[in-house]
Amino acid sequence: MKVAVIGTTGYGGGELIRILHNHPIFRIHSIHSTREEMPITEEFPHLENIFEDSLKKVDSEKIAEDADLVFLATPSGVSGKLAQQFYGKDIQIVDLSGDLRIKSAEEYQKWYKHDCVNEETLADAVYGLSEWNRENIINARLLANPGCYPTAALLGLGPVVAAGLIEPTGIIIDGKSGVSGAGKSLSKTTAFAEMNDNFRIYKVNQHQHIPEIEQQLKLWDGHITPVTFSTHLIPITRGIMTTAYVQLKKELTTAEVIELYQETYLNHPFVRVRKENQYPSVKEVCGSNFCDIGLNVDQRTGRLTIVSVIDNLMKGAAGQAVQNANLMNGIDEKAGLNFIPIYP
Amino acid sequence: MKVAVIGTTGYGGGELIRILHNHPIFRIHSIHSTREEMPITEEFPHLENIFEDSLKKVDSEKIAEDADLVFLATPSGVSGKLAQQFYGKDIQIVDLSGDLRIKSAEEYQKWYKHDCVNEETLADAVYGLSEWNRENIINARLLANPGCYPTAALLGLGPVVAAGLIEPTGIIIDGKSGVSGAGKSLSKTTAFAEMNDNFRIYKVNQHQHIPEIEQQLKLWDGHITPVTFSTHLIPITRGIMTTAYVQLKKELTTAEVIELYQETYLNHPFVRVRKENQYPSVKEVCGSNFCDIGLNVDQRTGRLTIVSVIDNLMKGAAGQAVQNANLMNGIDEKAGLNFIPIYP
Amino acid sequence: MKVAVIGTTGYGGGELIRILHNHPIFRIHSIHSTREEMPITEEFPHLENIFEDSLKKVDSEKIAEDADLVFLATPSGVSGKLAQQFYGKDIQIVDLSGDLRIKSAEEYQKWYKHDCVNEETLADAVYGLSEWNRENIINARLLANPGCYPTAALLGLGPVVAAGLIEPTGIIIDGKSGVSGAGKSLSKTTAFAEMNDNFRIYKVNQHQHIPEIEQQLKLWDGHITPVTFSTHLIPITRGIMTTAYVQLKKELTTAEVIELYQETYLNHPFVRVRKENQYPSVKEVCGSNFCDIGLNVDQRTGRLTIVSVIDNLMKGAAGQAVQNANLMNGIDEKAGLNFIPIYP
Amino acid sequence: MKVAVIGTTGYGGGELIRILHNHPIFRIHSIHSTREEMPITEEFPHLENIFEDSLKKVDSEKIAEDADLVFLATPSGVSGKLAQQFYGKDIQIVDLSGDLRIKSAEEYQKWYKHDCVNEETLADAVYGLSEWNRENIINARLLANPGCYPTAALLGLGPVVAAGLIEPTGIIIDGKSGVSGAGKSLSKTTAFAEMNDNFRIYKVNQHQHIPEIEQQLKLWDGHITPVTFSTHLIPITRGIMTTAYVQLKKELTTAEVIELYQETYLNHPFVRVRKENQYPSVKEVCGSNFCDIGLNVDQRTGRLTIVSVIDNLMKGAAGQAVQNANLMNGIDEKAGLNFIPIYP
Repeated sequence: MKVAVIGTTGYGGGELIRILHNHPIFRIHSIHSTREEMPITEEFPHLENIFEDSLKKVDSEKIAEDADLVFLATPSGVSGKLAQQFYGKDIQIVDLSGDLRIKSAEEYQKWYKHDCVNEETLADAVYGLSEWNRENIINARLLANPGCYPTAALLGLGPVVAAGLIEPTGIIIDGKSGVSGAGKSLSKTTAFAEMNDNFRIYKVNQHQHIPEIEQQLKLWDGHITPVTFSTHLIPITRGIMTTAYVQLKKELTTAEVIELYQETYLNHPFVRVRKENQYPSVKEVCGSNFCDIGLNVDQRTGRLTIVSVIDNLMKGAAGQAVQNANLMNGIDEKAGLNFIPIYP
Repeated sequence: MKVAVIGTTGYGGGELIRILHNHPIFRIHSIHSTREEMPITEEFPHLENIFEDSLKKVDSEKIAEDADLVFLATPSGVSGKLAQQFYGKDIQIVDLSGDLRIKSAEEYQKWYKHDCVNEETLADAVYGLSEWNRENIINARLLANPGCYPTAALLGLGPVVAAGLIEPTGIIIDGKSGVSGAGKSLSKTTAFAEMNDNFRIYKVNQHQHIPEIEQQLKLWDGHITPVTFSTHLIPITRGIMTTAYVQLKKELTTAEVIELYQETYLNHPFVRVRKENQYPSVKEVCGSNFCDIGLNVDQRTGRLTIVSVIDNLMKGAAGQAVQNANLMNGIDEKAGLNFIPIYP
Repeated sequence: MKVAVIGTTGYGGGELIRILHNHPIFRIHSIHSTREEMPITEEFPHLENIFEDSLKKVDSEKIAEDADLVFLATPSGVSGKLAQQFYGKDIQIVDLSGDLRIKSAEEYQKWYKHDCVNEETLADAVYGLSEWNRENIINARLLANPGCYPTAALLGLGPVVAAGLIEPTGIIIDGKSGVSGAGKSLSKTTAFAEMNDNFRIYKVNQHQHIPEIEQQLKLWDGHITPVTFSTHLIPITRGIMTTAYVQLKKELTTAEVIELYQETYLNHPFVRVRKENQYPSVKEVCGSNFCDIGLNVDQRTGRLTIVSVIDNLMKGAAGQAVQNANLMNGIDEKAGLNFIPIYP
Repeated sequence: MKVAVIGTTGYGGGELIRILHNHPIFRIHSIHSTREEMPITEEFPHLENIFEDSLKKVDSEKIAEDADLVFLATPSGVSGKLAQQFYGKDIQIVDLSGDLRIKSAEEYQKWYKHDCVNEETLADAVYGLSEWNRENIINARLLANPGCYPTAALLGLGPVVAAGLIEPTGIIIDGKSGVSGAGKSLSKTTAFAEMNDNFRIYKVNQHQHIPEIEQQLKLWDGHITPVTFSTHLIPITRGIMTTAYVQLKKELTTAEVIELYQETYLNHPFVRVRKENQYPSVKEVCGSNFCDIGLNVDQRTGRLTIVSVIDNLMKGAAGQAVQNANLMNGIDEKAGLNFIPIYP
């Protein structure tokens, strides 16, 4: 199968190359960027002798003719426009941006501060939380790949929310992300001398991943009320941890909760539920497509603490995108994703 | 005034030297450790040509005779025993450990897993949250210096809890600390290759700072129920951020909350309340005794997010200890503490 | 082919698992450690759901019977003893320690401070610098895998030394390594709070890799005199850079030197020679088996600066060990080693 | 004494504020930047409640009237022009850029790639290597503060070069710097996700500090030939280490060399020479004005290894600038510089 990648010079694009170059079924047919004609190795010298294709301009007609699937690793705003160009053509579309995730145009505009794609395109986009929306993903032509924070938070919250075990109000999600999540644009905030040996909170109560999280939570439990979701920047390159706090409706032991999670994710190879008293650190998944989950019920408060970690560029972006592309094409969802976390 | 320092070779002890060496009133009379007779520069080569005293053994009789004040920078378990030895002698005691903070012996034993100091000593110990317990601190002979996390969390929560503005149930405090907070003992968890580019949660719902936080919150509002307090390790050396989530009883704007905080801390030079839409990062206080606070009310949820940052070795340990020693002796509380945060 | 790994719980052992688990020909038959019977996931939780074998005790008779090849990822001192136990049995041996590298027993004892393996074993050990000793490696039964620093330094120096283009005296090699190179033993030097935001020099003029580097240089040019080799610790987890300074015998341009290197390494897929004015950073090889080399001739001094970078756990240890095992068995040297550097 | 600071929003400017705000003699009279009228706290929130002056535009007439001394913390190119404006006016000038350091206009243009200041101004500028040019500094009106790398390298090389103990050819200096040395301009190279867990070499044989180092070495020993000087970027915020390699003319022990250094720097409080077998790490000076030096003679090669560390923003910039300003005004050179290294 021939795939095209648009937005190849960003971190998500680079990670797609790392995965797709060794993929057993997909073959990179062309890579695209606004910086056309430059060999990709000028931006990514680590690819020398491995993958040295040159970037091409984005010609959606030609791409749709030549390739079977296109990954959009472009920023919000750009992705939506591209998705509309490709929509209706004979090509599968996997979009890594937030442009196709929010079903309400109003909500999208409120949080993203610009216009949404057209209704028709939006209606056909399938939300690609691989472990929870598989039935729709396998028939999707247009896939909205989840955000990095939502992936970690939702995989962590899914089992108890879907089972109706927690109070629908007062969910708190405290998120922490490595700096690659901010992308490759230069900013003072993400300059080394500013971020090294530092830790900061950002976009307090304003992160655009909030409506994405709430939309999915409400699909599981219609009573869910607005959540509090905070985002912090960790001085690490890759990795996200979300620590979620929820109130249990009835008394449950940690062991019982862990059992529920293990059952829920039994046939999902990329989610690993930790044993009692064990909690994942972000390094234990880095470089891989795993989401690791740790759980603890505090008997003093009746609250459950849910710890989820992912590599934001893998399960939080390019990894889940390929997992979804596998599912869309009837391929083993693990194909091309047998990365063992790089440790230490 | 002559001061002695016990436990000088730890990070808290080293920081006390950094402060006291240039203090206008206190003079380091002697330093002590179990590693007696070694020049302190063997442990701390950064002190060469600056302060080169040798460590002496701990002889409480002699120390009480020679010095006016003793800082105990020793671990929990050791500090309590030393405090009892010094108690009743003609010397002021400032203990940086957790041994004298918890008024309930039962609670202490539950969380610290060993026996408490005797009732009499405990009863006389004054909790040294400088900004909130000043009246007692100025008359204290035996001071229990607050923990690092509790300092950040309580300075952040104090104004709204004491004013009765928040629901007493469901307080969530998500804490993040630099690795120096774990002290100098070697462990796999805090080895560089394990912690670099990593982020981990630890002691989930079991941290010994929980009873300390709850004890003070209940002094402010007797209705407070058990809190959820989580602790994470950031790959930085110094610095703590606590992100606290509380439900407001009535509608308030962020501006109103900020105003309350600014009034509360008006005469407290080490607490800096940030303007609306500004949030402190840990580097903005590192090396100094400041606690910086950022605030945001989420109108969607009616919840207030409170961000506090401190340098765990300064305001979270040695800095606040000297601030308290200043107060105990009628000295300007800023004496010896005019450190400007080292940035970047 | 069935392989056994001894010393599995160290960083080199963990990296061998990461490579071998997906290797097309080698199959991990058994893993061994002094911590027998423990599942490897207790030490390496990142391997959960991937590879969960339990550690077995080291029984050389049984291992030699069951496996075709054994990797010794054990420390110097231990490896030598094990190599002697396996020597002469029907099993290939690849030792990652320094115990079999130095042909002179006297030199070994001088730098390693303990006794050497017996003469017979030592005589048969083949030095596994894959790109330069291929002819001997393909027939080896007992392979001494090179040290991390020597691999970087020698791949960088080889072309000009072997071609007789540099003065044999006055070679300076300034080495810098990530902290994983120090292994997993706990030490104050490698504790996070001591090493973070720090940079230190260690073992000045005393590093045990000095005789290994000189031994190989002398094979290329018998006139080589003792080198100066310095080692520094960088606050990163993986990666080595060596910066070597040599005096050219005659005038050469940077372009000419680069051409020589490109020719030398033409058929060596794991060495990448950079274009003029481009220099590799350590991240550009991390997670992969590449050694990247940058070159510059300073016309003012007639000196050549040679920059080499490797991932110390890959090309500097486990990666090169598997590359050598491939060569020893007539397998494509790239088998199991198609890792793309993980960037960023 | 009233001082003005120009270029206040850079890292050097920020560090000047940190020092000058608590200086016993100098008083900050005004701060200047192209970003006039902005309160400095908008750029440096860590200064809130401490120092909140607003930036003013640069009016050299007015500044020369109002202030006694001006610090130029502006970039190369800008500083030279400002120095010429202030030159001849009744104000002392301390320039932290490279614009006044190189006595040969030709050399300056070759390395800095733009024009030099006029001859007259250049002729009057005094090179401010505090420990070696004191006699001229105390009478200077126009001071060229040394570069960060040259400060570390020259303090390390001075004693043996000035004493004529080393061969004048073949000096190698391998420099490593923290990222704050690159200043505050944004660049891909110094973005967190690119530099974290990374290590890179840059400006190979082309760094503009080369002529500065050679100029001073030749003042000590006219036979010195061009040096090899390399620069690497360490993933730390502050700190420089230079490792210098020189050939001794005659046999000397490490102890003898250390004795020479201790004598040379006997009356220089900011240079600390380490004992045999002890080597400084960069953290041991960070936040302070110290330069620490470690020494080792390799009997195998007759070469001396010289390790120097400084905080690039202190002894490498703002700290030495204030030290020089002290000397220029007959004040104790330590005034305002009693910072103890912040450790850890």
